Amino acid sequence: MSNCLVAQSGGPSSVINATVAGVVKANQLNPVYDTVYGGLNGIEGILNERLVDLTHMSENENRILRQTPSSALGSCRYKLKRENVQDFEKLIQVMEKYDIETLFYTGGNDSMDTVAALSEYAAAKGITNRRFVGCPKTVDNDLMVTDHCPGFASAAKFIATTAMQTWLDVNVYTRQEVFVLETMGRDAGWLAASSCLSGIVDLVVLPEQPFNKEVFLAEVKKCIEEKNKCYVVVSEGVRYADGTYLAAGEAKNDGFGHAILGGAGNAIKNLILETGTASRCKVQDLSTAQRCHASEQSLVDVEESFKLGMSAHMRSMDKAFTGKMVGVKRKDTAEYDVEFFATDASNVANHVKNFPAEWILPNYRGISDAAYSYLRPLIQGEPVIIMENGIPAYVKPYYMR
Amino acid sequence: MSNCLVAQSGGPSSVINATVAGVVKANQLNPVYDTVYGGLNGIEGILNERLVDLTHMSENENRILRQTPSSALGSCRYKLKRENVQDFEKLIQVMEKYDIETLFYTGGNDSMDTVAALSEYAAAKGITNRRFVGCPKTVDNDLMVTDHCPGFASAAKFIATTAMQTWLDVNVYTRQEVFVLETMGRDAGWLAASSCLSGIVDLVVLPEQPFNKEVFLAEVKKCIEEKNKCYVVVSEGVRYADGTYLAAGEAKNDGFGHAILGGAGNAIKNLILETGTASRCKVQDLSTAQRCHASEQSLVDVEESFKLGMSAHMRSMDKAFTGKMVGVKRKDTAEYDVEFFATDASNVANHVKNFPAEWILPNYRGISDAAYSYLRPLIQGEPVIIMENGIPAYVKPYYMR
Repeated sequence: MSNCLVAQSGGPSSVINATVAGVVKANQLNPVYDTVYGGLNGIEGILNERLVDLTHMSENENRILRQTPSSALGSCRYKLKRENVQDFEKLIQVMEKYDIETLFYTGGNDSMDTVAALSEYAAAKGITNRRFVGCPKTVDNDLMVTDHCPGFASAAKFIATTAMQTWLDVNVYTRQEVFVLETMGRDAGWLAASSCLSGIVDLVVLPEQPFNKEVFLAEVKKCIEEKNKCYVVVSEGVRYADGTYLAAGEAKNDGFGHAILGGAGNAIKNLILETGTASRCKVQDLSTAQRCHASEQSLVDVEESFKLGMSAHMRSMDKAFTGKMVGVKRKDTAEYDVEFFATDASNVANHVKNFPAEWILPNYRGISDAAYSYLRPLIQGEPVIIMENGIPAYVKPYYMR
Repeated sequence: MSNCLVAQSGGPSSVINATVAGVVKANQLNPVYDTVYGGLNGIEGILNERLVDLTHMSENENRILRQTPSSALGSCRYKLKRENVQDFEKLIQVMEKYDIETLFYTGGNDSMDTVAALSEYAAAKGITNRRFVGCPKTVDNDLMVTDHCPGFASAAKFIATTAMQTWLDVNVYTRQEVFVLETMGRDAGWLAASSCLSGIVDLVVLPEQPFNKEVFLAEVKKCIEEKNKCYVVVSEGVRYADGTYLAAGEAKNDGFGHAILGGAGNAIKNLILETGTASRCKVQDLSTAQRCHASEQSLVDVEESFKLGMSAHMRSMDKAFTGKMVGVKRKDTAEYDVEFFATDASNVANHVKNFPAEWILPNYRGISDAAYSYLRPLIQGEPVIIMENGIPAYVKPYYMR
């Protein structure tokens, strides 16, 4: 017998811990591995042998872990670069030292690239007893091949709910007013688009289309003329045709070559006020809260995330199972249902799945029926949240113990 | 028999509609009034005879109304000024025309001043059959006499939960980082202070104390040295000793003589980065969401708000009941419980109840045990929220029908 290791990478989500809980629970149902290690702070911590033992997690802790947002094992933005061979060697050494046969790694594009790179390295070195399995997670929902990504739906549900609630707020006064809700979404507009599930969004601005100031302001003006209000949702990653971000003034770089955005909402506000399109404009940037507001998880999302971890563990009994990501496939049935499947992590690494152009209505006027059919089943259902003294009960992060 | 009228004023909350639901339900249990009118957009709409009939609201609609955030009747910031006698005359005319004996008015300081002014006017004119009753609501919790204000606790619960969740998010990376959560609270720090219920807040900055830059930055530095992180909560209304707002650059005026704030979080961020106290700082401004995030109402709050409306209606059977506000008094029992009482609206009008100085720990290090004892019972319990297609079911605002 040998051990396995589960770790988390990239930006957290509301259900990322459910995948870890799934791996742990699967091993309790069928102890394929002696020990289930948790790696702290992703690859960064594993390289420093920062491991915890999750094998005997109680059912109660497992349940609370599933409702705990953010990465309970900690995360990292450290990327294994193929030219840094010493990192690969060190990682294999750690796996050998702790007799770790399988590494389960949850994350987005970059993490799937890590899984692909590690399995390629092992194959090239003839190492057959160290295996690497990716589990997708990203609120951005921008991974290829999988129908959707665990984490997205809970963020989408929070965004749609908050859109509805803030729309009710902004309408109570008779005065002229534009409300701008800013969501995450650097390259893909899935989160911004999901606000339309509220049914109240007037205009939605996605990064998939170059921003046309004149067309947008004309639509705001129409709304104002019609009802003295306009409810706008904008994705942080919206760009002009020349590639500059709306939020260009504030753009920085996160060291991965990704721009750190923020401020698209304020850029829209400034446009509206400077041009006199409306006399009043308020901005709400959902910021960090949208990816960690686990008190309103989608039941579909958290259950799929948990089962995906179980599926990854169960598939890893196959000794040839490496360099794979476990994904979610939507069944072609009237009632929403999914099946899990495996694909090469390299099919997912470093690609971006955009919100489909054909799902975007002209003039920022929302999304198509096909988009609603895709999105609506994902936000259904609410898990019972275990509370403690008026706020949700959460596990203490393992990296703080 | 005669009729009554219920209307809403000021900034909305997550449970303000429950008071309206309580007035309507009390009249169904004991039809003291023939018709329960709803006045649209507060005094502003009443002066223009914009009324709806709420008398026969179904139990199902009543239940959904209780979970609907913001003012379902619409709100206004129109203030009856004592020198504008024609407004008072017009209002009495409207009440006469529709045979309205009692006006129930929900709101904050300004609304209680309206109640006081109207009852004084009626008394001065010898009008005895038009009565005025105030129902407190404000997320700011800054009304005198009442133990607390309906609306505050649900916002406090959302803020404490969001603090916990974003703290879990900011801790996942090992990098040095300060997180700043900005809450509402122009003059009173109740909302910012309630973030401490999460148990994770390092530093909380309230408007009750002049901001001392040096002391604050020294405390941030201590946190960074100790754990490389610092979690800060700041109220929008924080001022320097000379009275200028931290967010001074962005301060405007709402026409009531109140400054419109926003940006205290960014002011703190700039301070921290400019002085090199920490290398990274993220700000989340909870903005509008904190006062309308009704999907996580406090059960205590929504039930008290409903009962307060019932109590106001029931007390109004007394023909001498006018110029009063119905408040909440905490019983002196081990188990949290309240009783409702009435006070003159003039006792409440235009005063502000600050967060007690003796509840503030030195050096921004949180709040006292007495503060926790006051706050904790208010955020307990969660109502069952009726959902529809993945998001909460809400009534269509009456002003849109």
